Amino acid sequence: MKINTDYLTFQTEGEIDIIDLKYMLENLVKKSEVTEGLVSLNVIGSTGALTAIEYESGVLDDFRRILKELVPKGANYKHDVIDSNAHSHLRASLIGPSISFTIKNGQLQLGTWQNPVFVCLDIRPRSRKISVTIIGK
Amino acid sequence: MKINTDYLTFQTEGEIDIIDLKYMLENLVKKSEVTEGLVSLNVIGSTGALTAIEYESGVLDDFRRILKELVPKGANYKHDVIDSNAHSHLRASLIGPSISFTIKNGQLQLGTWQNPVFVCLDIRPRSRKISVTIIGK
Amino acid sequence: MKINTDYLTFQTEGEIDIIDLKYMLENLVKKSEVTEGLVSLNVIGSTGALTAIEYESGVLDDFRRILKELVPKGANYKHDVIDSNAHSHLRASLIGPSISFTIKNGQLQLGTWQNPVFVCLDIRPRSRKISVTIIGK
Repeated sequence: MKINTDYLTFQTEGEIDIIDLKYMLENLVKKSEVTEGLVSLNVIGSTGALTAIEYESGVLDDFRRILKELVPKGANYKHDVIDSNAHSHLRASLIGPSISFTIKNGQLQLGTWQNPVFVCLDIRPRSRKISVTIIGK
Repeated sequence: MKINTDYLTFQTEGEIDIIDLKYMLENLVKKSEVTEGLVSLNVIGSTGALTAIEYESGVLDDFRRILKELVPKGANYKHDVIDSNAHSHLRASLIGPSISFTIKNGQLQLGTWQNPVFVCLDIRPRSRKISVTIIGK
Repeated sequence: MKINTDYLTFQTEGEIDIIDLKYMLENLVKKSEVTEGLVSLNVIGSTGALTAIEYESGVLDDFRRILKELVPKGANYKHDVIDSNAHSHLRASLIGPSISFTIKNGQLQLGTWQNPVFVCLDIRPRSRKISVTIIGK
């Protein structure tokens, strides 16, 4: 049984920049030499979130739109007095900080049109970091 | 330490069909002979999601209603030009693709009225597949 | 490779009481002596949820407000005929029952302003229980 921890790091644009993690994750799984097990990811930071979506520009725009409609920016939030990013935190907490996927035959168990994504909800460009744990044999 | 990966497969009706996974998962846990550890599940496919809810017909209907209200079908989404299922993707990405539960004394650590569920958000009946990893001793 | 399962237990006030789990979790990680691995948490019960948020009173109030706006209490839900807590279940299922974080160098991989939290969505004060699994070396 092996266990590896690693990071994914990249630059983001802020205000719902959606980063495809599929190929980065597949590389980490390959590097780990785990053929059967689990990969678990968590965001480091409270203005980012993890989920899965089809990485198609139309539906990514639709996801941005629905997040803006459900949690509008600048809607008289208390936290905006401290830092004008209450909407970033709220959207992140709704989507959630962590996701996990099975590894079988050395492959992430994903659908053809299903991509694990990092959703950057911050208000400005940032350098972001995701923590990855791979457990298996 | 043991690690098992397996699938749950079943037919779904589409448009928010909610499948109770409790008994299927309990069987996998029993079969794994893991008495202390973790079970982690992920959807395979981008129009399904995993969460937990009381499996009572009233609250299941309420959950369908709230998903329809928060992310209405056919609300002029960009992805609907490609495939008329933008609402399916958006609801799936909001709920999330993965859940996990502790195993202790050979039992899933769930509340009495808490059922892990697969939420089929697709627009048509489908054969669906969930990936399950069990790690423990 | 080690595996530990444990519980976090505490009293909650109900109607969106948000409990900071960071210090309780850090203690469990320290006690486990795992320096590299995974900690995974799930709620026991269907009217609570787990996510991460900055533990700042303003944004916590904003999160309470947005949950009340997205899933209003007493909006003629079917489940309210049985028990007047449909909104509790719906909010819990949207946020989700489980989260997980990497452990590296004996530390939870969290951002400075990122706290794992239990969100009590029940309508009354309760004694609550969270299940925690720590896997690693």
